[in-house]
Amino acid sequence: MKLSVLGEFGLIDRLNRDLINHPEGVVRGVGDDAAVLRVDGGRELLFTTDMLVEEVHFSFRWAVPEQVGVKALAVNVSDIAAMGGLPAHAVVSLGVPERLTVEELDGLYLGLRRAARAYRVNLVGGDTVAVPDGLVINIALLGLVETGRAVYRSGARPGDLLYVTGSLGKSAAGLQLCRHPEAAVPAEAAAFVLKAHLEPGARVRAGRLLAEAGVTAMDDISDGLAGELGEICRASGTGCVIRAEAVPIDPRVRTVAGVFGADPLDWALRGGEDFELLFAVAPERARKVEEVMAQNGEKCTRIGVLLPAAEGMRMEKGGVGFPLTAGGYDHFRR
Amino acid sequence: MKLSVLGEFGLIDRLNRDLINHPEGVVRGVGDDAAVLRVDGGRELLFTTDMLVEEVHFSFRWAVPEQVGVKALAVNVSDIAAMGGLPAHAVVSLGVPERLTVEELDGLYLGLRRAARAYRVNLVGGDTVAVPDGLVINIALLGLVETGRAVYRSGARPGDLLYVTGSLGKSAAGLQLCRHPEAAVPAEAAAFVLKAHLEPGARVRAGRLLAEAGVTAMDDISDGLAGELGEICRASGTGCVIRAEAVPIDPRVRTVAGVFGADPLDWALRGGEDFELLFAVAPERARKVEEVMAQNGEKCTRIGVLLPAAEGMRMEKGGVGFPLTAGGYDHFRR
Repeated sequence: MKLSVLGEFGLIDRLNRDLINHPEGVVRGVGDDAAVLRVDGGRELLFTTDMLVEEVHFSFRWAVPEQVGVKALAVNVSDIAAMGGLPAHAVVSLGVPERLTVEELDGLYLGLRRAARAYRVNLVGGDTVAVPDGLVINIALLGLVETGRAVYRSGARPGDLLYVTGSLGKSAAGLQLCRHPEAAVPAEAAAFVLKAHLEPGARVRAGRLLAEAGVTAMDDISDGLAGELGEICRASGTGCVIRAEAVPIDPRVRTVAGVFGADPLDWALRGGEDFELLFAVAPERARKVEEVMAQNGEKCTRIGVLLPAAEGMRMEKGGVGFPLTAGGYDHFRR
Repeated sequence: MKLSVLGEFGLIDRLNRDLINHPEGVVRGVGDDAAVLRVDGGRELLFTTDMLVEEVHFSFRWAVPEQVGVKALAVNVSDIAAMGGLPAHAVVSLGVPERLTVEELDGLYLGLRRAARAYRVNLVGGDTVAVPDGLVINIALLGLVETGRAVYRSGARPGDLLYVTGSLGKSAAGLQLCRHPEAAVPAEAAAFVLKAHLEPGARVRAGRLLAEAGVTAMDDISDGLAGELGEICRASGTGCVIRAEAVPIDPRVRTVAGVFGADPLDWALRGGEDFELLFAVAPERARKVEEVMAQNGEKCTRIGVLLPAAEGMRMEKGGVGFPLTAGGYDHFRR
């Protein structure tokens, strides 16, 4: 069905169903000029936004609309997770090209609703406009965190130990496979990396545990490990060294890398979109943090240590040191 | 200067200056995964978002970047004003085409900062991504309102009187002039309507006064008076009648309409983007509201009355009744 059949109000009515997942904080959701949200005195608000653009951040050549919806919310939730907060209320702006069908838009919202349910997020408003070309999705997300408990990028000190949750490079492996669907890759490895790329998850639970355990700095890995290390070092005024062999890479990612003759470590460092958490812990709390994570079934791996700023950022691999640049994925530099 | 010279971090540093206008509510602004905002117990949050797309909502053929920045914030502030709230904290997402220059981006942010200062809004975060074609600006804005005082579209009843602030049709007149810069229009009229279209203001002060005075419903006029009447009637379950002769139209708008042989009433009804407030008042409070507005130098004009839903929406013009459709500007219906 063409969108023009629905008209704008029909479109809005269609999108505005089944959006609220914890009503106690909502005085008013969609349908007015702005949402009205209740916040109790003991908590602080977190506020983040991310824009996803067709053929830049996603492509319908390999993602179905539902996956794009899931991802659009997950990338925002990941920012709240990286502060140690709980996601709460989102507004969704859609720039819709005329060629998009009603079925595709329904699929997109199905994904948004699915992710909103999973993360207990209320969809409380939005804006829907026409765009000449590719689909644009912007989400702004409010989260809540106990007063004083938000974890910044800037709290780490030289000597703090560096960890990551989960494993890295899986989203980059999935993207590689999307771009080369003809490649012969074992099905289990293919399914794992495709899901990681097309329907990434955000580490809300791990972020909550880590904030409670008193980590000193935290960031989500949206632009590759190297880029996020740079963010923490820049914000905290430190350098760092990581051990290449310690960077957790799933065997299925190594399998896919093998097929393409690629270096999975490069995917981990620069691939982006893994949405794991990178965090720093004072050495005397490290054991406690490891225990809490293990008790709750959340994987984390120590990958290095923070250094004085003068030491810069480097990686040791096979006993040899390499400088590490913070570049990550630079959208504008060629 | 080409944006690629700056690189992403250079670009972000350049944009992240001079963003906070009332620091007491900000625990942390830009520079981390999310902003952290403090809310006291006696107030509710308002949360809105608007996306502006090049060649759909603005054009660099007639707007300078600074004006686009002003407008992008004003359209969001207008939503908060229409709830009776004060704007407070915004996050800004930019989808930046490669052809945009650093000077244009600086201009855009100059406009955002100018508007943020004028409305006392903190710019607390954002996202900057590449887009293949036109510039996309999405702003999400938080506002605050005293608990229980937010004014919805849905609170009006049959018999309530309808008013608008300021005057209507001026933005549509300005757009017409932008599209036909060769037209011979008196300079004063041209300047007035161009400013109205290119740098619209939001009626925050009027909205605050009206919320305090206890109006029953309110909406900002972003899609034409007819469309917003439809919103209030739909949400409140009413019909309405307005008197065409009462719709406030500035003489300078009539002058421009005369030049183009256009009907200024049509511009008021369907032109959109005037960002005045449409509101309803119980008859027994009408005099009080008029007095409060006059005392504060805020213009408002009574244009009609709400009716039972069965009466539908209509306009009386020269003693004859016309049906009024709620369509406004429909982005998808042809």
